[in-house]
Amino acid sequence: MPLQQHLQINGQRLNQCIEDLARFGQIANGGVSRLAFSQEDVQGRNQVQQWMHGAGLETRLDTAGNLIGRLPGKLAGPALATGSHIDTVPGGGKFDGVLGVLAGIEIARTLRENAIVLNHPYEVIVFTDEEDTMIGSRAMAGTASLHATDYCRKDGRPIDDCVNQSGGCWSQLSQARRSREQICAFIELHVEQGGVLETAAGQIGVVQGVVGMQRYQINITGRPNHAGTTPMDQRQDALVAAAQVVLAVNRLATHPPGQRVATVGALQVWPNAANIVPGQVRASLDVRDLDQGVIDHLVQALKLEMAAIAEATHTSIDILPQLNVAPSPAAHHIQKIIAGVSADLGLRALAMPSRAGHDALEMGRFTDMGMIFVPSQGGVSHSEVEYTAPEACTQGANVLLETLLQLDQYYSVG
Amino acid sequence: MPLQQHLQINGQRLNQCIEDLARFGQIANGGVSRLAFSQEDVQGRNQVQQWMHGAGLETRLDTAGNLIGRLPGKLAGPALATGSHIDTVPGGGKFDGVLGVLAGIEIARTLRENAIVLNHPYEVIVFTDEEDTMIGSRAMAGTASLHATDYCRKDGRPIDDCVNQSGGCWSQLSQARRSREQICAFIELHVEQGGVLETAAGQIGVVQGVVGMQRYQINITGRPNHAGTTPMDQRQDALVAAAQVVLAVNRLATHPPGQRVATVGALQVWPNAANIVPGQVRASLDVRDLDQGVIDHLVQALKLEMAAIAEATHTSIDILPQLNVAPSPAAHHIQKIIAGVSADLGLRALAMPSRAGHDALEMGRFTDMGMIFVPSQGGVSHSEVEYTAPEACTQGANVLLETLLQLDQYYSVG
Repeated sequence: MPLQQHLQINGQRLNQCIEDLARFGQIANGGVSRLAFSQEDVQGRNQVQQWMHGAGLETRLDTAGNLIGRLPGKLAGPALATGSHIDTVPGGGKFDGVLGVLAGIEIARTLRENAIVLNHPYEVIVFTDEEDTMIGSRAMAGTASLHATDYCRKDGRPIDDCVNQSGGCWSQLSQARRSREQICAFIELHVEQGGVLETAAGQIGVVQGVVGMQRYQINITGRPNHAGTTPMDQRQDALVAAAQVVLAVNRLATHPPGQRVATVGALQVWPNAANIVPGQVRASLDVRDLDQGVIDHLVQALKLEMAAIAEATHTSIDILPQLNVAPSPAAHHIQKIIAGVSADLGLRALAMPSRAGHDALEMGRFTDMGMIFVPSQGGVSHSEVEYTAPEACTQGANVLLETLLQLDQYYSVG
Repeated sequence: MPLQQHLQINGQRLNQCIEDLARFGQIANGGVSRLAFSQEDVQGRNQVQQWMHGAGLETRLDTAGNLIGRLPGKLAGPALATGSHIDTVPGGGKFDGVLGVLAGIEIARTLRENAIVLNHPYEVIVFTDEEDTMIGSRAMAGTASLHATDYCRKDGRPIDDCVNQSGGCWSQLSQARRSREQICAFIELHVEQGGVLETAAGQIGVVQGVVGMQRYQINITGRPNHAGTTPMDQRQDALVAAAQVVLAVNRLATHPPGQRVATVGALQVWPNAANIVPGQVRASLDVRDLDQGVIDHLVQALKLEMAAIAEATHTSIDILPQLNVAPSPAAHHIQKIIAGVSADLGLRALAMPSRAGHDALEMGRFTDMGMIFVPSQGGVSHSEVEYTAPEACTQGANVLLETLLQLDQYYSVG
C-alpha cells in the first residue's frame, strides 16, 4: 500500500503543542519541572483539557483525578484508549509522558478533520502522578491501596489530600477502576528513556511489555577489626563478601546474554575507615525482566551464591525483599500490528522491552496493552536536556493513529 | 641455667602502678581516656615522674616534651633506652603504652634494689602524643616536620601550642633529636594489640620490626545511568569495577600466603541509589608489611590489575598516594636475645611483625631497635575493655630486664 494512502496526523501542530505545554513549569535549558499536584501541573492540565475540548473530546475527571477525554464510537461497548501523563520529575524534560497525551489529542483532531468515526469509543487519558505514586493508573487497574498511609510521596504531601485537591475523591477511589468491558485495549506512545533505539538506529520501538522488578536489601555482617594488626586469614571482611556479591549479580545478569538487568546501585560500609576491616555492608539489589521466571531464577541463583560467599568469607548475608512488581506483557496481536504499521510507514522498528515503569504497566493488568517507543537522544530522560526530534514525535503519533485504526477493525471483527 | 638465677622484677608492684596510673582519666568499665596534652595526661606524667624519682632516675623534658628518666652507667657513652607512651585514644585501655613505661621504671627499681649498675646509662622515655602525631618519637628520630601547620591533630589543637604547654619548646624542636652515639639501642615492651599471640598460645612476641604502611585513595569513574533502561552491555558500572579492585587487593594480599596485609576499609558510591547504575566510587587502600619490597610489589601488581579492570569495565581508575611510612626492622641481634631470654625464662615466644605503629618505629630509624609483645585478650586494644593479664605484664617486664642486661654486655664487648 503506497504511503500516501495512510491517514496522517499534523506533525507541526503536535510539536507546537509539545512546546506550548512546556511553558507550564519551564526551567533553564528547555527543561520542565511540573510535579504532580503542583500549580504548574494544574495549569498544564487545564491547557490539555482545553485542547481536548477543541478536538471534540468530552472530558471528565475520575475519582483518582485522571483526566479522561472521550469521543463516542459508532457502536456502544468498550473503548480504545491511549494516553500517558504530563507530570514530570523535578528538573525533567518536555517529552516524557507529554508526547503520549498530546499525540492522543492530535489523533482525535485528525479523525474529526477527516470525518472518521471509529466503531469503538476513543479515550485519551491523562494519568495522575505517574512519576511518583502512579496512583492514577493503579486506581484504574484496581491495584492501588485505598489506605493513604501506604503511600509515601517524595514531597511529603499526603496522597489523599493531593487527589482531593486535584479534583479526585479519595474516599471513592475504587470507583476509578475500569474493566476489559470498558476498555478493550490501551496503547501508550512514549519516549524510550534509554539508548537502545538510538544505538540500533531504530525509529519505532515495538514494546514487548513492561519489565517486572524485584528490589532487595542485602545485609552483610562480618567483624570490624584493625586493618594493620588483623592477619588476612583471621578476617571476616564484609566488603570482600560484598564485592563477591556485586560480581555475582553482574555475572548472573550478563551470562548467558539476555534482556534482563540486575544492579547493585547503593552500597554502604561500616565503619568505613581506611584502617578498619569493614564489619558491615548494606547493599541494594534491583532485578528487572519481562519474564517473571527469569527474575525468580536469577534471585534463586544469587541466594545460592550468597550462601557460598558467606561461608567462604566467614560472614553472614541476609536478603530482604523490598519491592515486587510483576512484569506486564504487551498483547501479542498489538505488538504484531505496531510492527506491521511501522513497516507500512517505512519506519525501522525494533522489538524491545520497556525497562522503565509506565502507566501502561498497570493498564496491562486488566486489558490488552501495547506501547510504542520513539528514540531519546543519547538515551537521556528525567533530565532537562531530554530530547526527541520533532519528526520522531510525528512518526510515533502516526504509528499510534494507524495502530488504533487497525485495532478498531480487530476488535470489531472479534 | 635454672630460672631462679635470673633477676626478677616485682610483678605485684608493677601491676599496682598500672592500676594506679589508670586513675588519671579513668572512665567506665576500667577504661582510660587520657588524651595527649590533656589535664589527665599532665597529671599522669607528674605521677610517672614521681615514680621515676623514687626509682632513682634523674628526669628531664626535651624540647618535644618527651619525659626522659636516666640512670648513669659505669661508663660514659651511649645509653640503653626503653619506654613508650602514657597517652591513650579516646575510650582507650590501661595497658597500651603504659606497660612499657612502667616496666622501664620497675626495672630501674629492681636494678637499684639489687645494687646493679649497668655499664651503659639507662633511659626510660615517655614519648609525647604517640596516639596522634607521634611528635615525641619523630622529633627524637629527626623525622618530624618543623612546620606546625603540617600536623593536623584530631582534637584541632595546634601542635606547637600543645608542645609548648606541655613543657617542650616548639621553636627548638630539632634539639630533641638523638643519635646512635647517644642511644645504642631502644627496646619497647608493649601489648600486642592483635590476636596472634593469643591464637597461637604464645606468651612473648619477638617483634621482627614495625611494618611499613602505604595508603592510597582509589577513584573509579564510570557513568551513572538508569538501572532499568540501561542494558548490561552498555554500562560503565563503577561499583562493578570497584568490586573487582577489592577482590584483587584481597587476592594479592593472600596468595601466596605471607605476613602482608592489604585492606579496602572505606568505600563510597555515587549517586548511591538502588535504581541508578553507580557512576563513581572512591575507595581506600592500606597496605602493610615488614618488607618495603613486598609492599611495592603488591601495589605495582595491583596497578596492572586495575588497568585491566578499567579496560574491561569501561571505567577509569586513578590511584593517589596518601601516606607512605617505610618499614622499621628490629635489629637481628636484639630479636635473637629476646628469643633466647624467653626460652631461658620458660616462656613460649613467637616471632611476629608489629602491624601497628609504635614509638619504636621512629627510634629504629637511627638506632638498634627491638620490641617485646605480650598478649592482648581477644586481640582487643584501643578499647576500654583492653586487657592483658598481670602475669603477662610481669613476664614481659622480666624479658625486658634480662634483654637489657644482655645488651649491656653485648654493647660493652662490641
